[in-house]
Amino acid sequence: MLLIRFAFDFLSPYAYLAWQALPAIAERHGRTLQPMPVVFAALLGANGQKGPAEIPSKRIYVFKDATRTAHVLGVPLVPPPLHPFNPILALRACGLPMLDTQRNALVSALFDACWGGARRDLADPSVVADVASSIGLDGTARVTEASTEAAKARLRAQTDEALKLGAFGVPTMFVDGEMFWGYDSLGHLERRLGGIDPVDQLDLSVWSGLPAGATRRVK
Amino acid sequence: MLLIRFAFDFLSPYAYLAWQALPAIAERHGRTLQPMPVVFAALLGANGQKGPAEIPSKRIYVFKDATRTAHVLGVPLVPPPLHPFNPILALRACGLPMLDTQRNALVSALFDACWGGARRDLADPSVVADVASSIGLDGTARVTEASTEAAKARLRAQTDEALKLGAFGVPTMFVDGEMFWGYDSLGHLERRLGGIDPVDQLDLSVWSGLPAGATRRVK
Repeated sequence: MLLIRFAFDFLSPYAYLAWQALPAIAERHGRTLQPMPVVFAALLGANGQKGPAEIPSKRIYVFKDATRTAHVLGVPLVPPPLHPFNPILALRACGLPMLDTQRNALVSALFDACWGGARRDLADPSVVADVASSIGLDGTARVTEASTEAAKARLRAQTDEALKLGAFGVPTMFVDGEMFWGYDSLGHLERRLGGIDPVDQLDLSVWSGLPAGATRRVK
Repeated sequence: MLLIRFAFDFLSPYAYLAWQALPAIAERHGRTLQPMPVVFAALLGANGQKGPAEIPSKRIYVFKDATRTAHVLGVPLVPPPLHPFNPILALRACGLPMLDTQRNALVSALFDACWGGARRDLADPSVVADVASSIGLDGTARVTEASTEAAKARLRAQTDEALKLGAFGVPTMFVDGEMFWGYDSLGHLERRLGGIDPVDQLDLSVWSGLPAGATRRVK
């Protein structure tokens, strides 16, 4: 099966926006979209990096930029009641065993509840249960199941896999061994799916072997 | 004078790419492009942030992504012989008193020397002198002048101003009190210049006043 794997965290408005745009891209190129819940904070932590919400001017900038992109895409974008929030339970719920169609519907419904205007707090277990029920799952049972060791281990394993594949942020799309980061990379992703990717002609050893002429001490 | 102020560091391939695309945008909207050399490492340091070159998987990703964007733009992108390198002298040279047309030509010539295929090392004073001479300046005199306290103070002041205006990376474009970050923001920048910016209809207090429901300890 030809996949577009979509590593995401509900914290990211760009992940929400990419999730709105990706179904059409997947359809145009005969791809299946496979959501891969990961813990954004763990990606940041592994790279010793701050998130956009942790730099005040970047936090506001990101909200403005995401608003502009939502406007271009023609989709609503409204912040949840609290941000950042704890997305772990919602992410674990999306990793539970279920049909692919159910999983995609659950991811969509949770993104919409958070960023699509309903302003619901995904850190609240009753909200996650309610959203899961709204798409026909047994919400209460799923929230209970999302707290099991198996569900925790699954989210950790997916986060570790994303890290191993090189992810440093969300959303990250994995396509045929190539990685695309951020909403703004979707054009490049689609050109690659269409057979046009100048990276294939690139001697990457020139880049990867490039000597550093200066290094900086990071505080 | 209606400006697009362009805060940049020669280290950034995205700054090079934005500098290729901005003249046409400026012309379409009757704007004057004003380069503003800043020290990227100082922006990172002030925000306790790592640069893309300091995260191995991000370093390679950025080179690939910039290559893809260069291909779309139809401009060459070839890495300099060393990267990261020390860009300070080249940045100071661009801040010296000179005509606006000379400054823009110097910025262009230094970007081209670094990223346009010539693979020259801007950390080398003789390279900076040579490039300045190639556009009709007295290269040797300019390099000497770029090492004066006045030139150092000017680069520091511009970096501080960019930080005060909210910059956290390069390139950053300042337009009528709004800030746009990165090559990928040029579409939003141009829509704003064309009178379409959904941010103007936004109640930003909803975003800036958003309570945090979770915080993370940064290592």
